[in-house]
Amino acid sequence: MTATGDLFHVYDTTLRDGAQQEGLTLSVADKLAVARHIDGLGVGFIEGGWPGANPRDTEFFRRAREELHLEHARLAAFGATRRAGLAAADDPLVAALRDSGAGVVTLVAKSHDRHVELALRTTLAENLAMVRDTVAHLRAEGQRVFLDAEHFFDGYRDNRDYALEVLRTAFEAGAEVAALCDTNGGMLPGWVGDVVHDVVETTGVRVGIHCHNDTGCAVANTLAAVDAGATHVQGTLNGYGERTGNADLVTVVANLELKLDRQVLPAGLLGEATRVAHAVAEVTNVPPASRQPYVGTSAFAHKAGLHASAIKVDPDLYQHMDPAGVGNDMRLLVSDMAGRASIELKGRELGFELGPELVQRVTGRVKDLESRGWTFEAADASFELLLLEEVEGVRPSYVEVESWRVITETRIGDDALSEATVKLRAGGARIVVTGEGNGPVNALDAALRQAISQLYPEIVKFELIDYKVRILDQGHGTDAITRVLIETTDGQRSWVTVGVGPNVIEASWHALIDGLTFGLRRHDA
Amino acid sequence: MTATGDLFHVYDTTLRDGAQQEGLTLSVADKLAVARHIDGLGVGFIEGGWPGANPRDTEFFRRAREELHLEHARLAAFGATRRAGLAAADDPLVAALRDSGAGVVTLVAKSHDRHVELALRTTLAENLAMVRDTVAHLRAEGQRVFLDAEHFFDGYRDNRDYALEVLRTAFEAGAEVAALCDTNGGMLPGWVGDVVHDVVETTGVRVGIHCHNDTGCAVANTLAAVDAGATHVQGTLNGYGERTGNADLVTVVANLELKLDRQVLPAGLLGEATRVAHAVAEVTNVPPASRQPYVGTSAFAHKAGLHASAIKVDPDLYQHMDPAGVGNDMRLLVSDMAGRASIELKGRELGFELGPELVQRVTGRVKDLESRGWTFEAADASFELLLLEEVEGVRPSYVEVESWRVITETRIGDDALSEATVKLRAGGARIVVTGEGNGPVNALDAALRQAISQLYPEIVKFELIDYKVRILDQGHGTDAITRVLIETTDGQRSWVTVGVGPNVIEASWHALIDGLTFGLRRHDA
Repeated sequence: MTATGDLFHVYDTTLRDGAQQEGLTLSVADKLAVARHIDGLGVGFIEGGWPGANPRDTEFFRRAREELHLEHARLAAFGATRRAGLAAADDPLVAALRDSGAGVVTLVAKSHDRHVELALRTTLAENLAMVRDTVAHLRAEGQRVFLDAEHFFDGYRDNRDYALEVLRTAFEAGAEVAALCDTNGGMLPGWVGDVVHDVVETTGVRVGIHCHNDTGCAVANTLAAVDAGATHVQGTLNGYGERTGNADLVTVVANLELKLDRQVLPAGLLGEATRVAHAVAEVTNVPPASRQPYVGTSAFAHKAGLHASAIKVDPDLYQHMDPAGVGNDMRLLVSDMAGRASIELKGRELGFELGPELVQRVTGRVKDLESRGWTFEAADASFELLLLEEVEGVRPSYVEVESWRVITETRIGDDALSEATVKLRAGGARIVVTGEGNGPVNALDAALRQAISQLYPEIVKFELIDYKVRILDQGHGTDAITRVLIETTDGQRSWVTVGVGPNVIEASWHALIDGLTFGLRRHDA
Repeated sequence: MTATGDLFHVYDTTLRDGAQQEGLTLSVADKLAVARHIDGLGVGFIEGGWPGANPRDTEFFRRAREELHLEHARLAAFGATRRAGLAAADDPLVAALRDSGAGVVTLVAKSHDRHVELALRTTLAENLAMVRDTVAHLRAEGQRVFLDAEHFFDGYRDNRDYALEVLRTAFEAGAEVAALCDTNGGMLPGWVGDVVHDVVETTGVRVGIHCHNDTGCAVANTLAAVDAGATHVQGTLNGYGERTGNADLVTVVANLELKLDRQVLPAGLLGEATRVAHAVAEVTNVPPASRQPYVGTSAFAHKAGLHASAIKVDPDLYQHMDPAGVGNDMRLLVSDMAGRASIELKGRELGFELGPELVQRVTGRVKDLESRGWTFEAADASFELLLLEEVEGVRPSYVEVESWRVITETRIGDDALSEATVKLRAGGARIVVTGEGNGPVNALDAALRQAISQLYPEIVKFELIDYKVRILDQGHGTDAITRVLIETTDGQRSWVTVGVGPNVIEASWHALIDGLTFGLRRHDA
C-alpha cells in the first residue's frame, strides 16, 4: 500500500453495499473476481461483505484468505456492533468479524436516536456502550476498526449532540475513522459540507463519507465532504447500490485527481478505470450505463454534425479532459444526425481516406438503414463491412446462403432442443448441414461453423460472447421490429455486428453472418 | 402559464439537446408525443429543435402549430446567431427561427474566444455583432429571445472579459435571459457557484444554467447556480443528452421543490413526474434507468432483510421522502438477500396474510429459483402465481400443455416466417393448433390464444407489450442461460412474468404461459 492510501482512504463497498442493488446477485466466485478487478484500480480498501451474517460472505472471506492476493487493497469485513445486553466477546457475530482474516473491520453503528429506539429497540445509553465495547474489543484483538455511522445526517438533524457522541465514543475506543453515512440519500452538497465541517471542528474525529444518490448528488456530496475535511471516501464501482445506488467511486476519484489535483490512487492507475469498470460490469452482468461519467462508452462520443466538423480542428474544444486519463477513447458516432464530416472522420479512424462522393453515398446508406432500425453506433464491425462494400464495390462475403430453417421443440420431460438446417455455397461447393443447439441462434451458429470450418479453419477460434435483443417498436411486444447485437471474439479482440428485422431469428442470422465475415476478413487482411 | 413560470423558468431541452444522445432517434410524431408528455409536468418552456437546420425539426414546428396544444409550456425554437458577414434579416436560418411559430427563440452564441476563432472562424468583434444584430432583429420582429452562451464556463476561465461582454451584448439588444452553458461538462459545483455569482453581480443579466453530466455533477451544478442567483434551469427528461447526458430536469425540479422549498412547477404537477418520465422513455425507447433518482423503479425499492424488518416499524426510517410526492411507490423486493420479513410484507402487499411456516416455504422456493437464474424482483405476477401455488396447494392453471414446436425458415426473396404448433388440453378437450407469426414467440403466442380464445374470450383483450431477453451467463453468448421477461396488458393494467432456461424459446414459453394464467386468474377473481 502506498503512503497515499493512509493519508486518504479510497474505500470500495461494491461487494457489500453495491450488492444491495436490485437485480444484482454475486456468487462467491463473482465476488473474488470483482475484488481482483477493483484491486487493479489501486483503491486502499475493499469491503468484502458481512461474515457471520450471511453464509455466502463467510465463505467469501474463507476463500479470500486462501486465494485472493491483493496488490494494493486491504480487505475489510463489515458488521454490526454487539447485540444489546451481550458482552462483545460473547457475540458470535463479533467473533466472525474478528476471525474473518480481513485487515480491517468496519462496524456499522446507529447514530440517529430514532433508529436506536425504533429499529434497534434499545436505549441511547446502551447503543453507546455497544459502540464502545465492540470497538474496544476488536482493537484489543489487534484489528483496525472503521466506523460507519448509519443515518448520520438525519440523526445530526434530529439530535446533533447524540450523533456526535456516537462518533466520539467510537473514536475514544480506538476507531480510526468515522464514515458519516447518508443512508437514506436525501442530502444536498451544501448541507453535507456544513455538517462535515462542524463534525471535524467539534470532535476532531477523522471523518469519512458514504453517500447514496437519491437526490442525484452522491458524487457532489462526496466532494463537498472532502472539501470540508473528510479524508476517507466510500463508493462503489459503477455506482451500484440499493435504490438509486451509491456514489460512483470512479467518478469521485477521477474528479479528485483530474479536477481537484488530489492524487488519491497510486500514480497511473486511474488509467485503468474504464477497463476495470467494464470488467466488473461483465461479472455483475448489469449492463454498463453508456452515459456513465468518465468510463461510459458514450462519455466521449460525439454525434452532432456541428461538433464533428469542429473536432477536426481541435478535439480539445469539445472535451472536458483527455479520455486517455481514464483509459477511455473519443468516439465519433455514425448517426443520421451526423453530417458527412462524421462519416469522413469515422472512415479515417478505420483507415480509409474517403473522397467526397463516397462520403455522400455512405452517409445516404447509413441514414436510410438507420431510419429502418439499424444502428451502427454500437456495431462498428457492421459499419466497416458497409464501408468496405462501398469502397470495393462488393460486400466481403465468404458464403452464399440459399436458405435456412430452425426448429425448436419440447420433448416430454426434457429441455427444449433446437435444430438448424443451413443450405449454402462456399468454396465452389454446395453444402447442406444440420446443427443442434440449446437455442435457435446457437443451433444456427453451430450449423454455420460446421459448414465452413474445413474451408476456414480459423473460425474455430471465433466465439460468440454476447447476444443482445432489443424490441425497437415498444408497445407491440413480440410483433415488432427487433434489433440484435452480437459480439464475437477471436480470443484477442472482439467486434460487434448488428441485424434488424421483424423476426428475431432472422435479425440474429444477419448479425451472425456479419460477425463471421468480419472475423474472416480481418484474418485475410 | 402560472406566475411561477415567469419568475423562475423551468426549460426543457429533451427534444433538442436530449436528442443528441447516442442511440436516441425521434421522429416528428415522437417529438410531438414527448412534448405533450412533458407539458403534463408543467414546465414553462419546451425547446422543440432547430427549425431550418434540420428538415425534421422544421416539420416538427409546422405540425406543432397545427396539432400541439400545450397547457403549461411555451414552445422554444433553437438556432444560431446570423452567419458572419450577413445581415440578420437576410439569413435564411434566422428567418426560419422567426417564422417557426414558437413563442420564444433561444439563440446559441459563442462565448469562448477560442471557439470564435477556431470553430466559428471569425473575429471576436464580428461575433459580438452577430449576437447583437440577431437578438435585435428577432426582438424587432416581436420574439422573446433567450441566449444560450455556449462553452461559457471554459470561456470565462480563458477570457472572462470577453465571455461577460457576450452576455452584456445580448442583454442590451433585448435578450431576456442568458443561459450559461457548461457545454463540455467539466465543471464542479463550487466553480459553477462562483462564476454564476460573479456574472450576476457584475453584469446584472438574468442568468440561466445549462449543465452536462461529465463529472457526475450536472444536478448539483444546476443547484449551485440557482443558489448563486440563476432563475432559469435547463435540463432534459431522464437526463438524455450527448456523452454523459444533460442535467435530469425531474431530479433538479424535485430537489428544488422537495428539498429547497422552492415551488417551480404549478402546484401538484411534480406528482406526475414518475408517470411522465416513464411515458417519455416509452416514446424514446431508451430503457428507463431503474436507479434514476426520484422516478426510477428502484428509487424506493428495499431489498436488504435488515431494512425490511425495520420498515415494518416505520417506512420513513428508510426513505428520504414520501415517494408519492413524485408519483412513485415504495416497493419491497423479493430477493435471496431478503429475509423472511420481506416475503411476509410482500405477501401482505398482495393481500395475503402468510403464517410463519408458509413464509419459510416461500422464502426457500424463491431462494432456490433465484439461485438458478429466476428473478421475482421485476416479475411480480410470477411471484404472485408462486404464492398462490403455495397458499392454495396447486398452481393456477388453465391449460395442460402436451408439447409445442416452432419452426422459423427463410423463403426465397421474402422475410423469414415462424410457425408454431401447440398441443394441449383445456376445458376437457384436446386441442392441436398452429399459429403463424413474424417471430417464434409471436407464433407461439398466436397458437396459444387460438387454442383457448373460445374457452376464455377475455384473452382477446390481453396484449403482449414488452419482451426482454437477458443472457445470464455472459461470456458464453448464445450457449448460456437466458432470462425472458414479458409484460402483458389487459388495457387497464399490465403485469410482468419471467421465464428462464438454456433455450430462449422455452424461457419465453414459460413467461407467455404465466402471463396468460395471471391475466385469466385476475379476471376470475
